[in-house]
Parts: sequence; structure tokens; C-alpha cells
Amino acid sequence: MTMVKFALTPEEQLQELLKGVVDLVSKEEMLGKLKKSYSEKKPLRIKTGFDPSRPDLHVGHTVLMNKMKQFQDLGHEVIFLIGDFTAMIGDPTGKNETRPALTVEEVRINAETYARQVFKILDPEKTVVDYNSRWMNKFSASDFIRLASQYTVARMLERDDFSKRYKAQESICIHEFLYPLVQGYDSVALKSDVELGGTDQRFNLLVGRDLQKTYGVSPQCILTMPILEGLDGVQKMSKSLDNYIGVEDSPREMFGKTMKVSDELMLRYYELLTDMSVADLATLKSELASGKRHPRDTKVQLGHLLVNRFHGSAAADNAVEEFNRIFVDKGLPDDMPEMDLAPAKGVWICQLLKDLGLAKSTSEARRSIQGRAIEWAGSKVEDEQLKLDLSAGQEIIVKSGKKKFVKLRIKG
Amino acid sequence: MTMVKFALTPEEQLQELLKGVVDLVSKEEMLGKLKKSYSEKKPLRIKTGFDPSRPDLHVGHTVLMNKMKQFQDLGHEVIFLIGDFTAMIGDPTGKNETRPALTVEEVRINAETYARQVFKILDPEKTVVDYNSRWMNKFSASDFIRLASQYTVARMLERDDFSKRYKAQESICIHEFLYPLVQGYDSVALKSDVELGGTDQRFNLLVGRDLQKTYGVSPQCILTMPILEGLDGVQKMSKSLDNYIGVEDSPREMFGKTMKVSDELMLRYYELLTDMSVADLATLKSELASGKRHPRDTKVQLGHLLVNRFHGSAAADNAVEEFNRIFVDKGLPDDMPEMDLAPAKGVWICQLLKDLGLAKSTSEARRSIQGRAIEWAGSKVEDEQLKLDLSAGQEIIVKSGKKKFVKLRIKG
Repeated sequence: MTMVKFALTPEEQLQELLKGVVDLVSKEEMLGKLKKSYSEKKPLRIKTGFDPSRPDLHVGHTVLMNKMKQFQDLGHEVIFLIGDFTAMIGDPTGKNETRPALTVEEVRINAETYARQVFKILDPEKTVVDYNSRWMNKFSASDFIRLASQYTVARMLERDDFSKRYKAQESICIHEFLYPLVQGYDSVALKSDVELGGTDQRFNLLVGRDLQKTYGVSPQCILTMPILEGLDGVQKMSKSLDNYIGVEDSPREMFGKTMKVSDELMLRYYELLTDMSVADLATLKSELASGKRHPRDTKVQLGHLLVNRFHGSAAADNAVEEFNRIFVDKGLPDDMPEMDLAPAKGVWICQLLKDLGLAKSTSEARRSIQGRAIEWAGSKVEDEQLKLDLSAGQEIIVKSGKKKFVKLRIKG
Repeated sequence: MTMVKFALTPEEQLQELLKGVVDLVSKEEMLGKLKKSYSEKKPLRIKTGFDPSRPDLHVGHTVLMNKMKQFQDLGHEVIFLIGDFTAMIGDPTGKNETRPALTVEEVRINAETYARQVFKILDPEKTVVDYNSRWMNKFSASDFIRLASQYTVARMLERDDFSKRYKAQESICIHEFLYPLVQGYDSVALKSDVELGGTDQRFNLLVGRDLQKTYGVSPQCILTMPILEGLDGVQKMSKSLDNYIGVEDSPREMFGKTMKVSDELMLRYYELLTDMSVADLATLKSELASGKRHPRDTKVQLGHLLVNRFHGSAAADNAVEEFNRIFVDKGLPDDMPEMDLAPAKGVWICQLLKDLGLAKSTSEARRSIQGRAIEWAGSKVEDEQLKLDLSAGQEIIVKSGKKKFVKLRIKG
């Protein structure tokens, strides 16, 4: 362990670390740990666990990573713990489709996918990647019984989801009680000082804290982060709700999605998805409130920050330029209607204009083309007999006159 | 596996096996197993588990062993399973004093003590002794999670004692849910056809049956035996209630205690503690009812059977002879009052007679001795100054006149 000279005082560190946090158990203990770490020049050990059965990340997952990065930037040691032991077991009942049992090879591949995405945010040099199979594979049956003796059934049933399922007479298998204990034991094995997690992990993080006490390890502080809302601003961000920004989305997609969020959600994304300091965030808010800053410019800046993080500054600059060229310079609205179509070949332009609602009939579409009022992907349509091939993945803006637009998306 | 020629038909076997049974799950399956075994000349595998943390047996524990012996006598294979894996873990919370963690050495000693007592009933040549540590020590953490996934919390909470404790808000530790699963897994490992247990084990035996199904092993029948009442005929037999006959009690104690049970309890003991056939038991009952048999003689016969089993026929004959000499020949009642005294030296006979309630005062005692009315251990007392040494373990009948008796017991 190298000695660290911290740039910020413990009190200053705590203030930064509280950005966006839902719950910290406890502030006093956290300050105590920061002070001790500061005076001993010894970084704190920050644990965050990830489930390698879902390697495909969206920016909602990066809320935690941003908090990890904050700790890392402050000088602490961040441990990225991959729960491969449990992932390789999966859900033995087979009832839970989101928990398929993974092979060693699948875990390795998923962990690499994770790492590729994670190291867009964290500094690989300063990040410890660990696997809980390292200690759990050595765990004997009697170790397990001892572990299970540390918690009561009643306390486990206090966990929100268990409590709801138990009351609704939905079955809870006994191994589901063991998973929080394994996750908690990871904190014993790692001797973590702090564990980060989403608010949905609060119970599990507290189990870790409790188990550390019973196993004679100094108990960790727990710090929970909000579950990020999706683009709709209401539901939590998720792939299945199609309200997400993927970590591996293209720069154009990432930027485009960002431009669509509400002004309120934009501020939330600033807080949770960027490393803007508490002070800068306060300035930004007050400037927006006073009208000194324009929301649209602020959103462009957010889009730039996000693309920059995941694709680098050149891609970010490009995305802004392209946005300006299409929307700002051409006077396109950023909330134009969208329409999804299946791929097709040889589609007649006039039929398409009618289907998109840009003409009431194919005759009207023909007249619009003759009047040079139709633009397809930025160029005027001249031929009213034009046949188009629509391929999966295309996004085309179709314009009729000066005020009618549709963004056409071809879905595979 | 040697081929077995069974003396009784499957139907006859089933009838014998039902003697004293509380519950059999299920009679149809059991008959099916017996038929298959009969036609294939292949013995059934009968599992009975014992907890090696309490090696000191009373005859209440032998109810199960008698049922094992019955299976053995019919030609089946009896497995005496010692639950050493769980015994070596004990109760990790330390709350349960009756479950201390045992060392390998303690388990070995207790298992030998068990075997010594058990083989007074079972044929050692025909009995398989096994230890569940054989497979449980190889169990990995992931094997454990798979095992735990086979049962739900709700079903486990249906177990009588768990259900009561949960409702009373008494704590149940999670490892307590694992013990029935381990016991059940033993049936998977042993591929048992039948498991025997007391009625208090019914739930655990059913877990074994369920787990065999999920692990692809033919499910065992379960057969529960009653918990034997103690000498009082009401409470269950237990050391702490001092209403027991110990397997290692002396022949005299064993016989004497047997003679004290009620006529009703005598029949219960015949049913559960001897290998009398169902037919003979029916005859005995009808002869008692018709007065053809005297209850006292029947009790003497029971005492003889028990002493014979645990100490051999010579000791049994002796016990009957001694009983006849003291009680029958001398016309002593078999329900005379008893009094316990501590060991002492130089006790004056007259003071003792007063203390035993055989005289109202030492003067009256003196007059009784002068009148040659006092008998000490079968001989007349002549000296009214007699000093007696009372040593631990003695049992002395003291008689005053023809009708007053006290059995004096000197307790160590």
C-alpha cells in the first residue's frame, strides 16, 4: 500500500462525496474514516459489487461508477468486485430468467466487457478488479452454516422485496437468503471501509456491515446512490423500457437521446452522470434560474460531456457540430415526430410520404415533389417515381415544406 | 449386495412393520417397495439418523431401534446414520446449549457409546454404520446453494417448531433452515428406501423424501414412531424428568422400574419396546381382558424381556428371582413407599425409624425393637442401640410389624 497525500481535507472530501447520495450510514463514521485515512496517509478501501450476468451497461449503471471515480480522484482505493461465484450458480430453481448460470468462460468474457465499459470512467491503473470466487470457492459447507447462523429469518424477511413476496404468498427459495449473506461476506473478505450500491442494494450493504462486526472486521460505511430515471423522467432507466442511453451507443445516438430529456432531468443527469463538482453544479442551476444560461445550450454541453466520456473529445465535438448543422442551422426542431418502419426495398416515395402523414394522398405527394417541397435526408427530391431501399439502422429526416418534419427510423 | 430370500410375503411384512407406527407415507408405496424387494430378492435400505451429541440413551430411544430390528429381522438392510457433520458444527450462535460443537474425537467416543447400546438390539453383522460427514465434508458452497434452492422459506416455516417460534417472534437463525436440508440430503446420498424417525421428525423425513425427488432418486417412504411416555405414563420419557429407564441401568433398577408402570403403560411398552409379534400382542391383550392372565405376572414378563435384552437371560432370571424373593415370597407389596437418604455413618436405628415414619418417636422405635417388630434388610433388629452405615447405591427394605414397609434408597 502506497502512502497517499490527499489534496482535500476530510471535511472537503465528505462534502464532495455527498453529491447525489441518497443515504450514508453514517456521516459521523464516514468522517472518522476519512480523518484517519488522511492522518495516516492511507487510502480507504471502496467496494462496489457488479453482477456479471448482465454485461450490457447503460448510463444508469454509471451513476455508481461516477461515485467510484470520485473516491478514486480523491485518492482512495476502488475495488471493482465481480460476483462471479453467484453468477456461476445462477438461480438453481431456473425460475428467474435474469439469473442464468454462467460458465467460467462466459464470466470472463462478461467481465472483460464490463471492464471495457467501466474503464471509460475509472482509471484502470488505480482500480483493483477482484472476483468473489477467490474466497467463496474455498468456502466449506460448515463455513456456510456458520455464515448462515449470523442472521435471523425475521431480519431477512424485513428486506423490502422479500417482505412483499412473503405477504403476497409468492415463493422465496431458501438460497435467496444465502445470496445477501455471500455478498455481505465479500465485505468481510475484502475488509472494505465503504461499500457503494444503488438504493435497491441498501439492505444487502447493511448485511455486509453487520457481518463484518460479527467476524471481527471494522464495519464498513454504506453509501447508496439513486436509481437513475430513464429518458421519460419517470420510470427507471432500463433496456426493456427502451428509455436508456447505452454506454456503447454511437456518439450520434448518445447525443441525440440526451437532447431529448426534460430540463429537470437534465439537471439530474448532470448531478449523477458527470463529475461536475458540487460548487459548479450550484452555479449552473442558478444561472439557469436567472436566465443567464439557455437550457438548450446546457443540454448540448451535457451531451458533449457524455459523448466525451464514452467516445472521446473528437467524437463529442463532431456530435455537437452535426447537431448544429441539422437542427440549429436548418432550423429543425429537436422534438420532431418519429416513425419506425420495417426494412423494405423499392418503396415508392409518394406512398411513403402518404404513410408518414406528410401528404394526404399520393397525388398530393406528387404535387409536393413537383413543387420542390420535399427533402429526403437533406437533399431535394426531384423524381416523383423515386423508389427507395429502406435498410435496418437508418435514420432519415424527411421534410415537407418549411414546417413539417418526420424522423424515419428503420428497425431491423 | 447379497440376495435375500424373505420368509414373509410383502403383505405379511407390511402388517408386522405397522406395529406401533404413528404414520406411514405411504402404505401403497411401502407395499410396492416390499413387493419389488421380494421379487428381486433385494433388501430395502432403511435409514435412521442419530444425533451423536447426546450419547446417553434411555429405552425411549429404543422404540426406533426396535423398528430397525424388525426391518433387519425381516431381511432388510439397516443403516445407522450418525449425523457427525452437523454435530461437529453444533449451534454456531451458541444459544442452544443442547447443541455444543463436538470434536472429531468426541464424535468418535459418542458413536462408540451409541454402538455399544444399539448393538444390544441390532445385529452388528447386519447393520451398516455410516457418518454424514462422508459426503457433507465434500460439499462445496455452490452445492449448498443448490441444495437450499430446493426448498422455500414458506414451506420451512410450516414446520411446527419454526411456525410457533416465528409467531411468537422468537428468533430463528438461517442456518436452522439448513439443518433439515442436510438431513434430507443424507437420504439422497444414501438412496434410502425408507426412513424411520420419531413423530417429532416427521417434517425432516418428508424433506428427505422431497429432496430425493428433485435430485432424481426414488423417494423414500417415511415411517414415524411415537415418542415413548415415561414411567409416569404422561410426560415423554426423559432424563431431566427422571421418569426413564436407562439402557445402561442395572438389571435390578430396570426390572424394578418396569414393575412400577401402570397396566395401560405396560401394554404400550410391550408394543414399543419388545419384538413381540402383532398376533402375540393381540393374544396377550385379550387374555388380560378376560382375566386369564394376571397383570402382575405380565409385568414380570415385560421386566424379564427388557433385562434380557440389555443384560442377557441370566441377569433377567436373577432379577425375577430376586423380585420373587423380596416381594412375592415375603408378601411385600410392589408399590411400597420409598424414601431417599444421603449416605451417612453411625446412624442410630431408632432415629432412622422415626425419620422413616415407621415410629412416632425414638421411644416408640425402641419399644418396637424390644417387641421384635422391626426387620432391616430381611433380618430382625435385636439391638436398640444399633448404629448403621448407609452407603450410596444401597436399597434396603425396612419393615415394622406385618403391614408397614419403607424402601430406603441411599443416593450418592
